[in-house]
Amino acid sequence: MIALDRTHDPALRSWVESANRADTDFPLQNLPYGRFRRAGSGQPWRIGVAIGDQVLDLARAAVDGAWDAEVATLLAPLAAGDLRDLMARPAAQRRLLRAALSRALSSDAGQPARLAASLVPQADAEFTLPCVIGDYTDFYTGIHHAATVGSLFRPDNPLLPNYKWVPIGYHGRSSSIVPSGHAIVRPVGQLKGAADAPRVGPAQRLDYELELGFLVGPGNALGAPIAIGVAEEHLFGVALLNDWSARDIQSWEYQPLGPFLSKNFGSTIAPWVVTMEALAPFRVPFERPAGDPAPLPYLDSAANRAHGMLDIHLAVSLQTRAMRDAGLAPARLSASAVREAAYWTPAQLVAHHTINGCNLQAGDLLGSGTLSGPRAGEAGSLLELTLGGERPLQLPNGERRTFLDDGDTITIAGWCDRAGARRIGFGPCSATVRPAPGLG
Amino acid sequence: MIALDRTHDPALRSWVESANRADTDFPLQNLPYGRFRRAGSGQPWRIGVAIGDQVLDLARAAVDGAWDAEVATLLAPLAAGDLRDLMARPAAQRRLLRAALSRALSSDAGQPARLAASLVPQADAEFTLPCVIGDYTDFYTGIHHAATVGSLFRPDNPLLPNYKWVPIGYHGRSSSIVPSGHAIVRPVGQLKGAADAPRVGPAQRLDYELELGFLVGPGNALGAPIAIGVAEEHLFGVALLNDWSARDIQSWEYQPLGPFLSKNFGSTIAPWVVTMEALAPFRVPFERPAGDPAPLPYLDSAANRAHGMLDIHLAVSLQTRAMRDAGLAPARLSASAVREAAYWTPAQLVAHHTINGCNLQAGDLLGSGTLSGPRAGEAGSLLELTLGGERPLQLPNGERRTFLDDGDTITIAGWCDRAGARRIGFGPCSATVRPAPGLG
Repeated sequence: MIALDRTHDPALRSWVESANRADTDFPLQNLPYGRFRRAGSGQPWRIGVAIGDQVLDLARAAVDGAWDAEVATLLAPLAAGDLRDLMARPAAQRRLLRAALSRALSSDAGQPARLAASLVPQADAEFTLPCVIGDYTDFYTGIHHAATVGSLFRPDNPLLPNYKWVPIGYHGRSSSIVPSGHAIVRPVGQLKGAADAPRVGPAQRLDYELELGFLVGPGNALGAPIAIGVAEEHLFGVALLNDWSARDIQSWEYQPLGPFLSKNFGSTIAPWVVTMEALAPFRVPFERPAGDPAPLPYLDSAANRAHGMLDIHLAVSLQTRAMRDAGLAPARLSASAVREAAYWTPAQLVAHHTINGCNLQAGDLLGSGTLSGPRAGEAGSLLELTLGGERPLQLPNGERRTFLDDGDTITIAGWCDRAGARRIGFGPCSATVRPAPGLG
Repeated sequence: MIALDRTHDPALRSWVESANRADTDFPLQNLPYGRFRRAGSGQPWRIGVAIGDQVLDLARAAVDGAWDAEVATLLAPLAAGDLRDLMARPAAQRRLLRAALSRALSSDAGQPARLAASLVPQADAEFTLPCVIGDYTDFYTGIHHAATVGSLFRPDNPLLPNYKWVPIGYHGRSSSIVPSGHAIVRPVGQLKGAADAPRVGPAQRLDYELELGFLVGPGNALGAPIAIGVAEEHLFGVALLNDWSARDIQSWEYQPLGPFLSKNFGSTIAPWVVTMEALAPFRVPFERPAGDPAPLPYLDSAANRAHGMLDIHLAVSLQTRAMRDAGLAPARLSASAVREAAYWTPAQLVAHHTINGCNLQAGDLLGSGTLSGPRAGEAGSLLELTLGGERPLQLPNGERRTFLDDGDTITIAGWCDRAGARRIGFGPCSATVRPAPGLG
């Protein structure tokens, strides 16, 4: 296991009482970063750290708190609201800030009353993207997803020969990544039916994709690959990600250069980045199934095999407009465990992405791809859950779905929960489908 | 033809004498934008306009020149060095600035001596990317390229059924776009031979791709498509682009999600953006070959048919290390005309990219894809010129090439030359291949 420190002690408690509740996503052991402002204030975005049901405003805390000189140096540039200032720092500096925040928010801290003035209730805040995202790469690490989708798009050839050698990935669109809560407009596009000519209309097979987003830390210079042994030092943290997909646009457009308009109409990212440091107690081995080829040397290391995988639990829920109108809670569609879903570790993604010299930069986003588990009911998309729309889902209120209707809200949840560690969560990643333009 | 104005008058002459030479890329009728600084100065990048063999420093010209109030308002923010401030402006404002610059640099101008202090010789300058590029999309408009490459990658299925309906495109990597003159490091990657397992090594089939890059102007809000009738107002201009490609990495990695590491190790863009306004005299009709389907309504307009295409000539040349050492000039590899190479117009690319609500932003780059002409010797890549490496090229000094060697310099040139208009050019887009890391 990766070395733990005092910030991971499950016995730690905070003077922010809501952080001590068993069901909070944000105990003192988590301390994820995000960007927020008081709702409706129209003010510049500020960097915050989630603690219980509060946000610690780092610009204000830099003034309110008592910090040593090195921590003060890390906090000062964050007042400008650009999280990349911290993301680009070496991991040791990020750990230093985490330790200082953990001390200052712990129930042993000397001056809770003073720092309390830096807290804003999350209920009074609105959130934006955790950082400016330069480039967005989406990988395809979910092997069960790849096999199932492959069987729908290419029945003769579901899992392609490169899959177990190459961490398959492609470039996504940065401009249309939106924060949780931002509506997703149903895309219009070319739809190909049985006729020779495609028709143009709103996508009828709108889907979600359950993903993790890895946010890049320091990054590398162009032409200088990152070796797998140091790859994780270049990751800052993890946020939940929904890579919305229009399956009917996708199946017509995707050859030979891959998905384009079927994906770039919107991707939803959660407001909170859970740091790699916070995830240290939730690292697990990754062993390939017997008979699979060993990873190529640039994708392999003893450390990666020993604790390269993340033990994160994921779940997707749907609340239709009818459910909302009737006051019904969202219905869970599926749940999966990352360690069972992903064929490649985060460190392997970084090493692969840069083996050709491609440069990663602070704030870049690496999507995991859809993280479907191996069992029925663990699929991370409707495409899989309904077998390409052939088998509709029955919802608890009697409604049926193959793909998403206007007014449907999809929410992704994620959490880590292992013996000996305090449970931490990722906060919700949620969005509602709006009708296509002009069809209101 | 699109309406011309006084700035296009072929009789116009400049007091910058080098702009009046017949062979300059940058006569008074061109006025492309770029970013530069005095070579070796290490100063912040400044916005400049090319005129003959000089650059007009806009920050300095804002002070040196005599401008009316509206032009001064356009020039003022450019002193910060971000061309997107101008790109995001409505086309009418961009035209206003062009007219003012044309007047000030014309031989009829009242105060040439005063503005002369704002000139820097191009030979004394170094250049960076013309703007910060947020998202990079690469299209595949070259139908002869698509058919030839398709026949090499998929002999049974060269031009896919979607090609004449969908302007095929995919997302590229922004971080690794580099300015002309920046060396390109040969990428390392997975190479798949006859053996079951791929090997890892430097790409052996390194290639260039002859492209135009369209730089986005104002752009659109997420969820709000741009109609084809106004699509060109959202384009700022055109720069030469070389989308370097590693064919051996590509053929192994590209299914099912498209090219990734085979492309994102580096793309070279020319320093100068020739504006859509400067290209007005070089607009031509685009008619589809008889028997081809009509474009779908969102991709069709009378204006697009009448003058949607650009009449730009392109050429690629190669200078090997041996040629350089022997003092031999670069050898031309191919030449093509955009109007014969491209199946989709720039306006169609904008309308397609946004039909699903995807948002374009000032400074985004849309690559044309490889612009190969229909005839032998007009192909825009070595993959095509050598039939997948089967037929080596014979160079004038006796060397042979299938793909690129270390030390090879590829230079793209582009120009417009039609009766009744002053010839304009795009400046060189050039880079030299460096050996893969550790293989000196």
